[in-house]
Amino acid sequence: MPKKPLILVTNDDGITAPGIRTLITAMKTIGEVVVVAPDSPQSGMGHAITVNSTLHLERVTIDDDSQTEYSCSGTPADCVKLAVREILKQKPDICVSGINHGSNSSINVIYSGTMSAALEAGIEGIPAIGFSLCDYNYNANFEAAKHFATKIVKKALKEGIPKNTVLNVNIPNTPLNAIKGIKVCRQAKANWVEEFDKRQTPLGKDYYWLTGKFVNLDKGEDTDEWALNNNYVSIVPVQFDLTAHHTIQTLNSWNFNE
Amino acid sequence: MPKKPLILVTNDDGITAPGIRTLITAMKTIGEVVVVAPDSPQSGMGHAITVNSTLHLERVTIDDDSQTEYSCSGTPADCVKLAVREILKQKPDICVSGINHGSNSSINVIYSGTMSAALEAGIEGIPAIGFSLCDYNYNANFEAAKHFATKIVKKALKEGIPKNTVLNVNIPNTPLNAIKGIKVCRQAKANWVEEFDKRQTPLGKDYYWLTGKFVNLDKGEDTDEWALNNNYVSIVPVQFDLTAHHTIQTLNSWNFNE
Repeated sequence: MPKKPLILVTNDDGITAPGIRTLITAMKTIGEVVVVAPDSPQSGMGHAITVNSTLHLERVTIDDDSQTEYSCSGTPADCVKLAVREILKQKPDICVSGINHGSNSSINVIYSGTMSAALEAGIEGIPAIGFSLCDYNYNANFEAAKHFATKIVKKALKEGIPKNTVLNVNIPNTPLNAIKGIKVCRQAKANWVEEFDKRQTPLGKDYYWLTGKFVNLDKGEDTDEWALNNNYVSIVPVQFDLTAHHTIQTLNSWNFNE
Repeated sequence: MPKKPLILVTNDDGITAPGIRTLITAMKTIGEVVVVAPDSPQSGMGHAITVNSTLHLERVTIDDDSQTEYSCSGTPADCVKLAVREILKQKPDICVSGINHGSNSSINVIYSGTMSAALEAGIEGIPAIGFSLCDYNYNANFEAAKHFATKIVKKALKEGIPKNTVLNVNIPNTPLNAIKGIKVCRQAKANWVEEFDKRQTPLGKDYYWLTGKFVNLDKGEDTDEWALNNNYVSIVPVQFDLTAHHTIQTLNSWNFNE
Protein backbone atom coordinates (compact mmCIF):
# COMPACT_ATOMS: atom_id res chain seq x y z
CA MET A 1 0.00 0.00 0.00
CA PRO A 2 1.43 3.44 -0.89
CA LYS A 3 2.30 5.71 2.03
CA LYS A 4 -0.45 8.13 3.04
CA PRO A 5 0.28 11.74 2.08
CA LEU A 6 1.33 14.11 4.87
CA ILE A 7 -1.06 17.08 4.97
CA LEU A 8 -0.34 20.31 6.84
CA VAL A 9 -3.54 22.14 7.80
CA THR A 10 -3.72 25.78 8.86
CA ASN A 11 -6.06 28.77 8.63
CA ASP A 12 -6.53 32.38 9.70
CA ASP A 13 -9.76 32.18 11.70
CA GLY A 14 -8.04 30.34 14.54
CA ILE A 15 -7.62 26.68 15.40
CA THR A 16 -11.09 26.22 16.92
CA ALA A 17 -13.07 27.74 14.00
CA PRO A 18 -15.63 25.42 12.39
CA GLY A 19 -13.99 25.95 8.98
CA ILE A 20 -10.66 24.40 9.95
CA ARG A 21 -12.35 21.64 11.95
CA THR A 22 -14.25 20.71 8.78
CA LEU A 23 -11.08 20.81 6.70
CA ILE A 24 -9.27 18.56 9.19
CA THR A 25 -12.09 15.99 9.03
CA ALA A 26 -12.00 16.08 5.23
CA MET A 27 -8.20 15.76 5.03
CA LYS A 28 -8.14 12.78 7.38
CA THR A 29 -9.96 10.77 4.71
CA ILE A 30 -6.97 11.43 2.42
CA GLY A 31 -3.83 11.36 4.52
CA GLU A 32 -1.97 11.92 7.75
CA VAL A 33 -2.90 15.31 9.15
CA VAL A 34 -0.78 17.75 11.20
CA VAL A 35 -2.42 21.01 12.25
CA VAL A 36 -0.52 24.22 13.07
CA ALA A 37 -2.94 27.13 13.26
CA PRO A 38 -3.26 30.49 15.00
CA ASP A 39 -4.53 30.54 18.57
CA SER A 40 -6.83 33.48 17.72
CA PRO A 41 -8.48 34.98 14.62
CA GLN A 42 -6.07 36.65 12.17
CA SER A 43 -8.42 37.90 9.47
CA GLY A 44 -7.08 40.69 7.29
CA MET A 45 -3.51 39.92 8.32
CA GLY A 46 -2.32 39.74 4.71
CA HIS A 47 1.13 38.24 4.44
CA ALA A 48 2.23 39.40 7.89
CA ILE A 49 5.09 37.67 9.66
CA THR A 50 6.27 38.15 13.22
CA VAL A 51 9.72 39.72 13.21
CA ASN A 52 9.68 41.94 16.27
CA SER A 53 8.25 39.63 18.91
CA THR A 54 8.41 36.06 20.12
CA LEU A 55 6.39 33.10 18.87
CA HIS A 56 4.76 30.47 21.04
CA LEU A 57 3.58 26.99 20.10
CA GLU A 58 1.28 24.85 22.23
CA ARG A 59 0.47 21.17 21.62
CA VAL A 60 -3.32 20.98 21.92
CA THR A 61 -6.23 18.57 21.63
CA ILE A 62 -9.36 20.23 20.32
CA ASP A 63 -11.58 17.24 19.65
CA ASP A 64 -11.44 13.54 20.48
CA ASP A 65 -9.49 12.71 17.40
CA SER A 66 -5.95 11.60 16.93
CA GLN A 67 -4.28 14.17 14.66
CA THR A 68 -1.29 16.17 15.93
CA GLU A 69 -2.27 19.78 16.57
CA TYR A 70 -0.41 22.89 17.63
CA SER A 71 -1.85 26.30 18.33
CA CYS A 72 0.50 29.18 17.53
CA SER A 73 0.66 32.77 18.77
CA GLY A 74 1.66 34.03 15.32
CA THR A 75 0.15 34.79 11.94
CA PRO A 76 -0.87 32.18 9.34
CA ALA A 77 2.48 32.66 7.55
CA ASP A 78 4.30 32.13 10.88
CA CYS A 79 2.35 28.89 11.40
CA VAL A 80 3.61 27.48 8.10
CA LYS A 81 7.20 28.53 8.81
CA LEU A 82 7.12 26.99 12.29
CA ALA A 83 5.46 23.80 11.05
CA VAL A 84 8.10 23.28 8.36
CA ARG A 85 11.12 24.17 10.48
CA GLU A 86 10.21 23.03 13.98
CA ILE A 87 7.41 20.47 13.90
CA LEU A 88 7.36 18.34 10.76
CA LYS A 89 10.15 15.83 10.25
CA GLN A 90 9.62 15.85 6.47
CA LYS A 91 8.20 18.27 3.92
CA PRO A 92 4.42 17.87 3.76
CA ASP A 93 2.96 16.57 0.50
CA ILE A 94 0.48 19.42 0.55
CA CYS A 95 -0.51 22.37 2.73
CA VAL A 96 -4.19 23.33 2.93
CA SER A 97 -5.44 26.51 4.53
CA GLY A 98 -9.00 27.32 5.59
CA ILE A 99 -11.79 26.72 5.20
CA ASN A 100 -12.07 30.47 5.56
CA HIS A 101 -15.30 31.93 6.88
CA GLY A 102 -15.85 34.39 4.03
CA SER A 103 -14.79 34.95 0.43
CA ASN A 104 -11.20 35.38 -0.71
CA SER A 105 -12.07 35.91 -4.34
CA SER A 106 -10.83 38.75 -6.53
CA ILE A 107 -8.67 41.41 -4.82
CA ASN A 108 -9.42 39.86 -1.40
CA VAL A 109 -6.57 37.45 -2.07
CA ILE A 110 -4.16 40.27 -1.24
CA TYR A 111 -5.60 40.89 2.26
CA SER A 112 -6.17 37.24 3.04
CA GLY A 113 -4.47 35.45 5.91
CA THR A 114 -5.83 32.16 4.55
CA MET A 115 -4.06 32.70 1.24
CA SER A 116 -0.92 34.07 2.88
CA ALA A 117 -0.44 30.70 4.58
CA ALA A 118 -0.89 28.92 1.25
CA LEU A 119 1.50 31.37 -0.45
CA GLU A 120 4.08 30.88 2.29
CA ALA A 121 3.93 27.13 1.72
CA GLY A 122 4.21 27.73 -2.03
CA ILE A 123 7.31 29.88 -1.53
CA GLU A 124 8.79 26.97 0.46
CA GLY A 125 8.15 24.68 -2.50
CA ILE A 126 5.18 22.89 -0.90
CA PRO A 127 2.04 22.35 -3.03
CA ALA A 128 -0.64 24.49 -1.40
CA ILE A 129 -4.31 25.39 -1.61
CA GLY A 130 -6.41 27.94 0.26
CA PHE A 131 -10.13 27.24 0.67
CA SER A 132 -12.78 29.84 1.43
CA LEU A 133 -16.55 29.61 1.77
CA CYS A 134 -18.49 32.69 0.68
CA ASP A 135 -20.35 32.89 3.99
CA TYR A 136 -19.01 34.95 6.88
CA ASN A 137 -21.13 33.24 9.54
CA TYR A 138 -19.37 31.36 12.28
CA ASN A 139 -21.98 28.61 11.95
CA ALA A 140 -21.98 28.49 8.15
CA ASN A 141 -22.86 25.25 6.39
CA PHE A 142 -19.54 23.73 5.30
CA GLU A 143 -21.01 20.64 3.60
CA ALA A 144 -20.36 21.76 0.02
CA ALA A 145 -16.95 23.22 0.93
CA LYS A 146 -15.96 19.91 2.53
CA HIS A 147 -17.03 17.97 -0.54
CA PHE A 148 -15.07 20.15 -2.95
CA ALA A 149 -12.01 20.51 -0.72
CA THR A 150 -11.72 16.72 -0.64
CA LYS A 151 -12.15 16.41 -4.40
CA ILE A 152 -9.68 19.20 -5.22
CA VAL A 153 -6.96 18.06 -2.80
CA LYS A 154 -7.15 14.49 -4.15
CA LYS A 155 -6.83 15.83 -7.68
CA ALA A 156 -3.95 18.17 -6.78
CA LEU A 157 -2.04 15.32 -5.12
CA LYS A 158 -2.53 13.18 -8.23
CA GLU A 159 -1.77 15.80 -10.93
CA GLY A 160 0.66 18.10 -9.13
CA ILE A 161 0.03 21.83 -8.85
CA PRO A 162 2.03 23.87 -11.44
CA LYS A 163 5.36 25.15 -10.07
CA ASN A 164 5.49 28.50 -8.26
CA THR A 165 1.68 28.52 -8.13
CA VAL A 166 -0.82 28.00 -5.32
CA LEU A 167 -4.54 27.53 -5.72
CA ASN A 168 -7.13 29.96 -4.37
CA VAL A 169 -10.40 28.03 -4.12
CA ASN A 170 -13.68 29.74 -3.26
CA ILE A 171 -16.92 27.88 -2.69
CA PRO A 172 -20.23 29.68 -3.32
CA ASN A 173 -22.69 30.01 -0.47
CA THR A 174 -25.04 27.49 -2.07
CA PRO A 175 -26.27 24.03 -1.08
CA LEU A 176 -24.10 21.21 -2.45
CA ASN A 177 -26.76 19.97 -4.87
CA ALA A 178 -27.11 23.45 -6.43
CA ILE A 179 -23.40 23.80 -7.24
CA LYS A 180 -22.85 23.31 -10.96
CA GLY A 181 -19.18 22.33 -10.90
CA ILE A 182 -15.64 23.74 -10.73
CA LYS A 183 -14.22 26.53 -12.91
CA VAL A 184 -10.56 27.54 -13.28
CA CYS A 185 -10.64 31.35 -13.35
CA ARG A 186 -8.66 34.53 -13.31
CA GLN A 187 -8.89 37.00 -10.40
CA ALA A 188 -11.70 39.50 -11.16
CA LYS A 189 -10.73 43.18 -11.35
CA ALA A 190 -13.02 44.10 -8.48
CA ASN A 191 -12.31 46.08 -5.34
CA TRP A 192 -13.62 47.51 -2.12
CA VAL A 193 -15.21 50.91 -1.98
CA GLU A 194 -14.44 51.77 1.56
CA GLU A 195 -16.02 54.03 4.04
CA PHE A 196 -14.99 54.71 7.55
CA ASP A 197 -17.58 54.74 10.27
CA LYS A 198 -16.38 57.71 12.34
CA ARG A 199 -17.34 57.61 16.02
CA GLN A 200 -16.33 59.29 19.24
CA THR A 201 -14.81 57.80 22.35
CA PRO A 202 -16.55 58.52 25.68
CA LEU A 203 -13.94 61.29 26.08
CA GLY A 204 -14.89 62.88 22.76
CA LYS A 205 -11.98 61.77 20.58
CA ASP A 206 -12.64 60.61 17.02
CA TYR A 207 -11.98 57.03 16.01
CA TYR A 208 -12.79 54.91 12.97
CA TRP A 209 -14.13 51.52 11.94
CA LEU A 210 -13.29 50.28 8.46
CA THR A 211 -16.42 49.35 6.50
CA GLY A 212 -16.96 48.93 2.81
CA LYS A 213 -18.82 47.56 -0.13
CA PHE A 214 -17.38 45.10 -2.61
CA VAL A 215 -17.80 46.36 -6.17
CA ASN A 216 -17.16 44.22 -9.26
CA LEU A 217 -16.88 46.18 -12.49
CA ASP A 218 -15.25 43.27 -14.33
CA LYS A 219 -17.77 41.85 -16.79
CA GLY A 220 -15.55 38.91 -17.86
CA GLU A 221 -17.07 35.44 -17.70
CA ASP A 222 -13.67 33.90 -16.95
CA THR A 223 -13.38 35.47 -13.49
CA ASP A 224 -13.79 34.02 -10.02
CA GLU A 225 -16.62 36.48 -9.31
CA TRP A 226 -18.55 35.30 -12.36
CA ALA A 227 -18.07 31.65 -11.38
CA LEU A 228 -19.21 32.20 -7.79
CA ASN A 229 -22.22 34.27 -8.83
CA ASN A 230 -23.21 31.46 -11.19
CA ASN A 231 -22.92 28.72 -8.56
CA TYR A 232 -19.54 27.34 -9.57
CA VAL A 233 -16.59 26.67 -7.29
CA SER A 234 -13.75 28.96 -8.46
CA ILE A 235 -10.08 27.98 -8.63
CA VAL A 236 -7.63 30.82 -9.33
CA PRO A 237 -3.97 29.87 -9.74
CA VAL A 238 -1.99 32.47 -7.80
CA GLN A 239 1.68 33.35 -8.22
CA PHE A 240 4.17 35.04 -5.93
CA ASP A 241 6.27 36.53 -8.69
CA LEU A 242 4.48 39.88 -8.60
CA THR A 243 6.47 41.34 -11.51
CA ALA A 244 4.26 43.05 -14.09
CA HIS A 245 6.44 41.64 -16.87
CA HIS A 246 4.32 43.25 -19.61
CA THR A 247 5.21 46.77 -18.40
CA ILE A 248 9.00 46.35 -18.37
CA GLN A 249 9.39 47.48 -21.98
CA THR A 250 7.39 50.67 -21.35
CA LEU A 251 9.41 51.49 -18.24
CA ASN A 252 12.65 50.88 -20.09
CA SER A 253 11.68 53.72 -22.42
CA TRP A 254 11.77 56.20 -19.53
CA ASN A 255 14.86 58.35 -19.79
CA PHE A 256 15.91 59.15 -16.23
CA ASN A 257 18.67 61.46 -17.37
CA GLU A 258 16.70 64.22 -19.04
CA MET B 1 2.19 78.19 -13.24
CA PRO B 2 0.80 74.64 -13.20
CA LYS B 3 -0.64 73.43 -9.89
CA LYS B 4 1.82 71.56 -7.69
CA PRO B 5 1.17 67.82 -7.52
CA LEU B 6 -0.40 66.47 -4.33
CA ILE B 7 1.85 63.78 -2.83
CA LEU B 8 0.72 61.34 -0.14
CA VAL B 9 3.65 60.02 1.90
CA THR B 10 3.53 56.95 4.12
CA ASN B 11 5.80 54.12 5.32
CA ASP B 12 5.96 51.09 7.60
CA ASP B 13 8.79 52.05 9.95
CA GLY B 14 6.67 54.68 11.68
CA ILE B 15 6.21 58.40 11.17
CA THR B 16 9.38 59.43 13.03
CA ALA B 17 11.78 57.10 11.19
CA PRO B 18 14.66 58.83 9.36
CA GLY B 19 13.64 57.14 6.09
CA ILE B 20 10.23 58.82 5.90
CA ARG B 21 11.61 62.15 7.14
CA THR B 22 14.07 62.04 4.22
CA LEU B 23 11.31 61.15 1.77
CA ILE B 24 9.16 64.05 3.01
CA THR B 25 12.04 66.48 2.51
CA ALA B 26 12.60 65.17 -1.01
CA MET B 27 8.91 65.27 -1.96
CA LYS B 28 8.53 68.86 -0.77
CA THR B 29 10.84 69.91 -3.61
CA ILE B 30 8.29 68.43 -6.04
CA GLY B 31 4.81 69.12 -4.67
CA GLU B 32 2.41 69.59 -1.79
CA VAL B 33 2.98 66.87 0.79
CA VAL B 34 0.48 65.20 3.12
CA VAL B 35 1.80 62.53 5.46
CA VAL B 36 -0.30 59.73 6.96
CA ALA B 37 1.95 57.13 8.53
CA PRO B 38 1.88 54.54 11.31
CA ASP B 39 2.50 55.72 14.87
CA SER B 40 4.82 52.73 15.44
CA PRO B 41 6.94 50.33 13.37
CA GLN B 42 4.94 47.87 11.23
CA SER B 43 7.69 45.87 9.55
CA GLY B 44 6.66 42.46 8.24
CA MET B 45 3.00 43.43 8.32
CA GLY B 46 2.46 42.37 4.69
CA HIS B 47 -0.83 43.59 3.34
CA ALA B 48 -2.55 43.61 6.73
CA ILE B 49 -5.64 45.74 7.29
CA THR B 50 -7.44 46.42 10.55
CA VAL B 51 -10.88 44.85 10.47
CA ASN B 52 -11.43 43.77 14.05
CA SER B 53 -10.43 46.87 15.96
CA THR B 54 -10.68 50.63 15.87
CA LEU B 55 -8.39 53.07 14.09
CA HIS B 56 -7.09 56.32 15.51
CA LEU B 57 -5.65 59.34 13.69
CA GLU B 58 -3.69 62.12 15.33
CA ARG B 59 -2.67 65.40 13.72
CA VAL B 60 1.01 65.79 14.58
CA THR B 61 3.99 68.06 14.03
CA ILE B 62 7.26 66.14 13.92
CA ASP B 63 9.64 68.82 12.72
CA ASP B 64 9.44 72.56 12.24
CA ASP B 65 8.10 72.27 8.78
CA SER B 66 4.73 73.05 7.34
CA GLN B 67 3.42 69.85 5.77
CA THR B 68 0.20 68.30 7.08
CA GLU B 69 0.94 65.13 9.04
CA TYR B 70 -1.17 62.48 10.74
CA SER B 71 0.02 59.55 12.77
CA CYS B 72 -2.23 56.52 12.56
CA SER B 73 -2.70 53.54 14.87
CA GLY B 74 -3.14 51.16 11.92
CA THR B 75 -1.08 49.38 9.31
CA PRO B 76 0.45 51.00 6.20
CA ALA B 77 -2.55 49.86 4.12
CA ASP B 78 -4.90 51.39 6.72
CA CYS B 79 -2.98 54.69 6.47
CA VAL B 80 -3.60 54.89 2.72
CA LYS B 81 -7.29 54.03 3.09
CA LEU B 82 -7.77 56.65 5.83
CA ALA B 83 -5.82 59.28 3.90
CA VAL B 84 -7.94 58.79 0.79
CA ARG B 85 -11.32 58.56 2.53
CA GLU B 86 -10.99 60.83 5.55
CA ILE B 87 -8.15 63.31 5.10
CA LEU B 88 -7.49 64.27 1.49
CA LYS B 89 -10.07 66.37 -0.31
CA GLN B 90 -8.89 65.10 -3.70
CA LYS B 91 -7.12 62.03 -5.01
CA PRO B 92 -3.35 62.47 -4.64
CA ASP B 93 -1.31 62.65 -7.85
CA ILE B 94 1.04 60.05 -6.42
CA CYS B 95 1.55 58.03 -3.24
CA VAL B 96 5.09 57.30 -2.10
CA SER B 97 5.97 54.87 0.66
CA GLY B 98 9.27 54.57 2.54
CA ILE B 99 12.10 55.10 2.46
CA ASN B 100 12.20 51.68 4.09
CA HIS B 101 15.11 50.85 6.36
CA GLY B 102 16.06 47.60 4.62
CA SER B 103 15.63 45.84 1.29
CA ASN B 104 12.27 44.95 -0.24
CA SER B 105 13.75 43.27 -3.28
CA SER B 106 12.83 39.83 -4.58
CA ILE B 107 10.34 37.82 -2.48
CA ASN B 108 10.53 40.44 0.31
CA VAL B 109 7.91 42.40 -1.62
CA ILE B 110 5.31 39.95 -0.33
CA TYR B 111 6.08 40.57 3.37
CA SER B 112 6.61 44.29 2.97
CA GLY B 113 4.50 46.88 4.74
CA THR B 114 6.17 49.57 2.62
CA MET B 115 5.00 47.91 -0.57
CA SER B 116 1.57 47.07 0.87
CA ALA B 117 0.92 50.81 1.24
CA ALA B 118 1.98 51.38 -2.36
CA LEU B 119 -0.15 48.45 -3.55
CA GLU B 120 -3.14 49.73 -1.60
CA ALA B 121 -2.79 53.08 -3.37
CA GLY B 122 -2.44 51.27 -6.69
CA ILE B 123 -5.63 49.31 -6.05
CA GLU B 124 -7.35 52.65 -5.43
CA GLY B 125 -6.14 53.86 -8.83
CA ILE B 126 -3.44 56.16 -7.43
CA PRO B 127 0.05 56.06 -9.03
CA ALA B 128 2.33 54.67 -6.35
CA ILE B 129 5.95 53.86 -5.60
CA GLY B 130 7.62 52.14 -2.66
CA PHE B 131 11.23 53.05 -1.87
CA SER B 132 13.64 50.94 0.18
CA LEU B 133 17.29 51.37 1.06
CA CYS B 134 19.30 48.17 1.43
CA ASP B 135 20.54 49.13 4.88
CA TYR B 136 18.67 48.11 8.03
CA ASN B 137 20.36 50.67 10.28
CA TYR B 138 18.20 53.31 11.90
CA ASN B 139 20.90 55.86 11.12
CA ALA B 140 21.56 54.72 7.56
CA ASN B 141 22.84 57.22 4.99
CA PHE B 142 19.80 58.19 2.91
CA GLU B 143 21.64 60.58 0.55
CA ALA B 144 21.57 58.32 -2.50
CA ALA B 145 18.03 57.14 -1.76
CA LYS B 146 16.87 60.76 -1.56
CA HIS B 147 18.52 61.61 -4.86
CA PHE B 148 16.94 58.67 -6.72
CA ALA B 149 13.52 59.00 -5.06
CA THR B 150 13.33 62.59 -6.29
CA LYS B 151 14.43 61.64 -9.80
CA ILE B 152 12.05 58.65 -10.08
CA VAL B 153 8.99 60.45 -8.68
CA LYS B 154 9.51 63.37 -11.08
CA LYS B 155 9.77 60.94 -13.98
CA ALA B 156 6.71 58.94 -12.86
CA LEU B 157 4.63 62.13 -12.60
CA LYS B 158 5.70 63.11 -16.10
CA GLU B 159 5.37 59.72 -17.87
CA GLY B 160 2.58 58.09 -15.85
CA ILE B 161 3.04 54.68 -14.24
CA PRO B 162 1.47 51.85 -16.33
CA LYS B 163 -2.08 50.99 -15.21
CA ASN B 164 -2.61 48.43 -12.43
CA THR B 165 1.10 48.56 -11.65
CA VAL B 166 3.08 50.06 -8.78
CA LEU B 167 6.84 50.48 -8.66
CA ASN B 168 9.09 48.72 -6.16
CA VAL B 169 12.32 50.73 -5.99
CA ASN B 170 15.34 49.50 -4.05
CA ILE B 171 18.49 51.53 -3.57
CA PRO B 172 21.80 49.74 -2.98
CA ASN B 173 23.72 50.44 0.19
CA THR B 174 26.38 52.36 -1.72
CA PRO B 175 27.53 55.99 -1.74
CA LEU B 176 25.71 58.11 -4.32
CA ASN B 177 28.78 58.57 -6.51
CA ALA B 178 29.30 54.80 -6.74
CA ILE B 179 25.78 54.07 -8.02
CA LYS B 180 25.90 53.28 -11.72
CA GLY B 181 22.30 54.11 -12.63
CA ILE B 182 18.75 52.73 -12.63
CA LYS B 183 17.65 49.34 -13.96
CA VAL B 184 14.09 48.15 -14.61
CA CYS B 185 14.05 44.55 -13.40
CA ARG B 186 12.01 41.49 -12.65
CA GLN B 187 11.66 40.15 -9.09
CA ALA B 188 14.47 37.63 -8.48
CA LYS B 189 13.45 34.07 -7.59
CA ALA B 190 15.18 34.20 -4.22
CA ASN B 191 13.87 33.36 -0.79
CA TRP B 192 14.57 33.11 2.91
CA VAL B 193 15.97 30.00 4.44
CA GLU B 194 14.59 30.37 7.89
CA GLU B 195 15.63 29.09 11.19
CA PHE B 196 13.98 29.60 14.50
CA ASP B 197 16.06 30.54 17.48
CA LYS B 198 14.42 28.38 20.18
CA ARG B 199 14.73 29.72 23.72
CA GLN B 200 13.13 29.17 27.08
CA THR B 201 11.12 31.57 29.22
CA PRO B 202 12.25 32.02 32.84
CA LEU B 203 9.51 29.47 33.67
CA GLY B 204 10.98 26.89 31.30
CA LYS B 205 8.52 27.14 28.40
CA ASP B 206 9.83 27.09 24.83
CA TYR B 207 9.46 30.11 22.59
CA TYR B 208 10.88 31.13 19.21
CA TRP B 209 12.48 34.03 17.36
CA LEU B 210 12.30 34.02 13.58
CA THR B 211 15.74 34.33 11.99
CA GLY B 212 16.95 33.49 8.53
CA LYS B 213 19.33 33.85 5.67
CA PHE B 214 18.41 35.32 2.30
CA VAL B 215 19.41 32.98 -0.51
CA ASN B 216 19.38 33.95 -4.19
CA LEU B 217 19.61 31.02 -6.59
CA ASP B 218 18.41 33.12 -9.55
CA LYS B 219 21.36 33.72 -11.88
CA GLY B 220 19.45 36.06 -14.20
CA GLU B 221 21.03 39.45 -14.95
CA ASP B 222 17.59 41.04 -15.37
CA THR B 223 16.66 40.69 -11.68
CA ASP B 224 16.50 43.23 -8.87
CA GLU B 225 19.09 41.24 -6.92
CA TRP B 226 21.55 41.38 -9.79
CA ALA B 227 21.01 45.13 -10.18
CA LEU B 228 21.49 45.84 -6.47
CA ASN B 229 24.58 43.63 -6.22
CA ASN B 230 26.04 45.54 -9.17
CA ASN B 231 25.39 48.98 -7.69
CA TYR B 232 22.28 49.84 -9.68
CA VAL B 233 19.00 51.15 -8.30
CA SER B 234 16.34 48.51 -9.13
CA ILE B 235 12.79 49.27 -10.24
CA VAL B 236 10.41 46.29 -10.36
CA PRO B 237 6.91 46.94 -11.70
CA VAL B 238 4.54 45.06 -9.38
CA GLN B 239 0.98 43.99 -10.12
CA PHE B 240 -1.93 43.07 -7.86
CA ASP B 241 -3.55 40.69 -10.30
CA LEU B 242 -1.91 37.63 -8.79
CA THR B 243 -3.39 35.22 -11.36
CA ALA B 244 -0.82 32.81 -12.79
CA HIS B 245 -2.44 33.14 -16.22
CA HIS B 246 0.07 30.78 -17.85
CA THR B 247 -1.13 27.84 -15.71
CA ILE B 248 -4.85 28.13 -16.48
CA GLN B 249 -4.63 25.84 -19.51
CA THR B 250 -2.88 23.12 -17.51
CA LEU B 251 -5.43 23.33 -14.70
CA ASN B 252 -8.28 23.19 -17.19
CA SER B 253 -7.01 19.78 -18.24
CA TRP B 254 -7.67 18.40 -14.74
CA ASN B 255 -10.74 16.18 -14.82
CA PHE B 256 -12.44 16.57 -11.46
CA ASN B 257 -15.04 13.96 -12.23
CA GLU B 258 -12.92 10.85 -12.52
